[in-house]
Amino acid sequence: MAQALRLAHSAIGLSDPNPRVGCVLVGEGWQVQGFTQVAGKAHAEVMALRAAQEAGHDPRGATAYVTLEPCAHHGRTPPCCDALVQAGLARVVVAVGDPNPLVAGQGSARLRAAGIRVDEGLMAAEARELNIGFFSRQVRQRPWVRMKIAASLDGRTALNNGVSQWITGEAARADGHAWRKRAGAVLTGIGTLLEDDPRLDVRVVETAKQPLRVVVDSRLETPPTAKLLAPPGAVLVYGAVPDARREAALRATGADVAFFPESGRGKVDLQAMLTDLAARGVNELHVEAGHKLNASLLKAGLVDELLVYLAPKLIGLGREMAAFGPLETLAEALEFEFREFEAVGRDLRILARPPRRGDF
Amino acid sequence: MAQALRLAHSAIGLSDPNPRVGCVLVGEGWQVQGFTQVAGKAHAEVMALRAAQEAGHDPRGATAYVTLEPCAHHGRTPPCCDALVQAGLARVVVAVGDPNPLVAGQGSARLRAAGIRVDEGLMAAEARELNIGFFSRQVRQRPWVRMKIAASLDGRTALNNGVSQWITGEAARADGHAWRKRAGAVLTGIGTLLEDDPRLDVRVVETAKQPLRVVVDSRLETPPTAKLLAPPGAVLVYGAVPDARREAALRATGADVAFFPESGRGKVDLQAMLTDLAARGVNELHVEAGHKLNASLLKAGLVDELLVYLAPKLIGLGREMAAFGPLETLAEALEFEFREFEAVGRDLRILARPPRRGDF
Repeated sequence: MAQALRLAHSAIGLSDPNPRVGCVLVGEGWQVQGFTQVAGKAHAEVMALRAAQEAGHDPRGATAYVTLEPCAHHGRTPPCCDALVQAGLARVVVAVGDPNPLVAGQGSARLRAAGIRVDEGLMAAEARELNIGFFSRQVRQRPWVRMKIAASLDGRTALNNGVSQWITGEAARADGHAWRKRAGAVLTGIGTLLEDDPRLDVRVVETAKQPLRVVVDSRLETPPTAKLLAPPGAVLVYGAVPDARREAALRATGADVAFFPESGRGKVDLQAMLTDLAARGVNELHVEAGHKLNASLLKAGLVDELLVYLAPKLIGLGREMAAFGPLETLAEALEFEFREFEAVGRDLRILARPPRRGDF
Repeated sequence: MAQALRLAHSAIGLSDPNPRVGCVLVGEGWQVQGFTQVAGKAHAEVMALRAAQEAGHDPRGATAYVTLEPCAHHGRTPPCCDALVQAGLARVVVAVGDPNPLVAGQGSARLRAAGIRVDEGLMAAEARELNIGFFSRQVRQRPWVRMKIAASLDGRTALNNGVSQWITGEAARADGHAWRKRAGAVLTGIGTLLEDDPRLDVRVVETAKQPLRVVVDSRLETPPTAKLLAPPGAVLVYGAVPDARREAALRATGADVAFFPESGRGKVDLQAMLTDLAARGVNELHVEAGHKLNASLLKAGLVDELLVYLAPKLIGLGREMAAFGPLETLAEALEFEFREFEAVGRDLRILARPPRRGDF
């Protein structure tokens, strides 16, 4: 199963919005493998069965190790469990069940009904973690929201004059691109767009597909010349205040525009936006925004994970990570739990989540 | 030597201003050990020789592993190298030479002159690191300045209303006391004293002696009722603007008062203060101050090490670690290098130093 999980990792930046799944097929004296391809193409189980066929192995009586319960429904591809049944497998070991409450258990049930022995739960936590965004979209109908912040050790994301390039080093920036690659969409706010004119695409690491780039831009102030509107990848601008001329100018660049106004505030309804992004198939949403949008997302409790890079430097006065507050008591502070610390070049990467946030 | 180093660690909170030294004496079929006692009492080598005598072992022909070059001068105790010569040792293995340029090498030379084989350099870096403050005082005539900061992940050391108790958890606070214990003096500023009324003594961990408590207080505004002026341990207030009445009131509590005015600014000359603290035998200076004094020490380049505890929470707007700047370019940021990350309870402990700061 560990090998199947490593295979599943190969589907990062490839399989979205489908989950990342790996499959190892073990017969007598042979072993083949597969992982989820681009959406609409073969799933992991079918890839492994094809590999067996190509190598001339008979899959009858073999055992499949799959990191996610084989699907039982017709999507753009036929159900994987049917393929496993037809191939005559004896046993299927599944890491974790399908998160979709409507189909969970059906794949395994269908396999069992066909006389295949099914065991579930081997390395379940790791398998779920790899697809935390897919699970989030299926169960919570919103993406897993990961907020990336690059700051100095004293928590400054920019100087007071807006200069922020570069606080962290090259290794941290490359690592940040690897996390962008995981995401179905990368989101920023109009403040950062106007100040930094970022591209927000995946550049420093190789990827088979580019994430959707999303701008929270209540009054559609994104200039049609913004770098982010250029290829590669699609762009989606969320507005709150309709403006036909500006909307047309944005659409003329190829961008999509959607309105989710929060009643009476002239701001984008962030919760509704997340629901919309989930409906569009975004599993993991990677946020690279400034202190204002960060504050709005955090205050609304919409951030599932912090991905913080701290550079070994002190800046003193400057821009904060998130401009909420000032608080009156420490009990109002937003609570997280550290999950991981790792040196990345000269910088430090920290992963943190609100307590029990992953339990859904 | 690893064992001798572990012994040397036992002298933390005990031997100051003397260095932390461990000694393991190895004869045929026996082994004894010792470490530096309270200043004025026996050094590590003598402790080990006494242990041999008490156990009835003949030290002639034995080998001593010592973490610091045996002293060759008469201080409050006779020279250790004479004791080793008199005991008839065959060999002395020394981790690192004496940092004092006036006596460095003399101990080893005296041993060699007496026919003892001396080898130097085994685990030298670790031995020096344990006594970084002693080395700093001997070589640079100033203490090793370690600035402790407890903050939220977004770099806030307090709310805007001054509330800071407690941002970090119990484990981090206990760990902080262990670092206070290492220090010859714990320093704060009048701002923190007036706001938090801290005691700054070592409480949560056991210690044989209390560090000197130091207040940077230009106009002698420390109220005679301040908790810090109560036992245990001595107190020293550094002022810049003489005030006979206030000085007398402070001295009446048992505190010492010293004036090191920076010309024309009405502030304490921090550099001169450090020189004075070194002259008073302070090896490691532990700073627990607020954003203003932190900024002054950092801007002056006087901070040798950051000891930062980050709590897994976000505070948003609030007090910064150090209120210097705002900077105009990122090149002006104060550069450090991370040395260590460690989880302490739910918090994260980070150690960082300016590049090459330890190379003296």
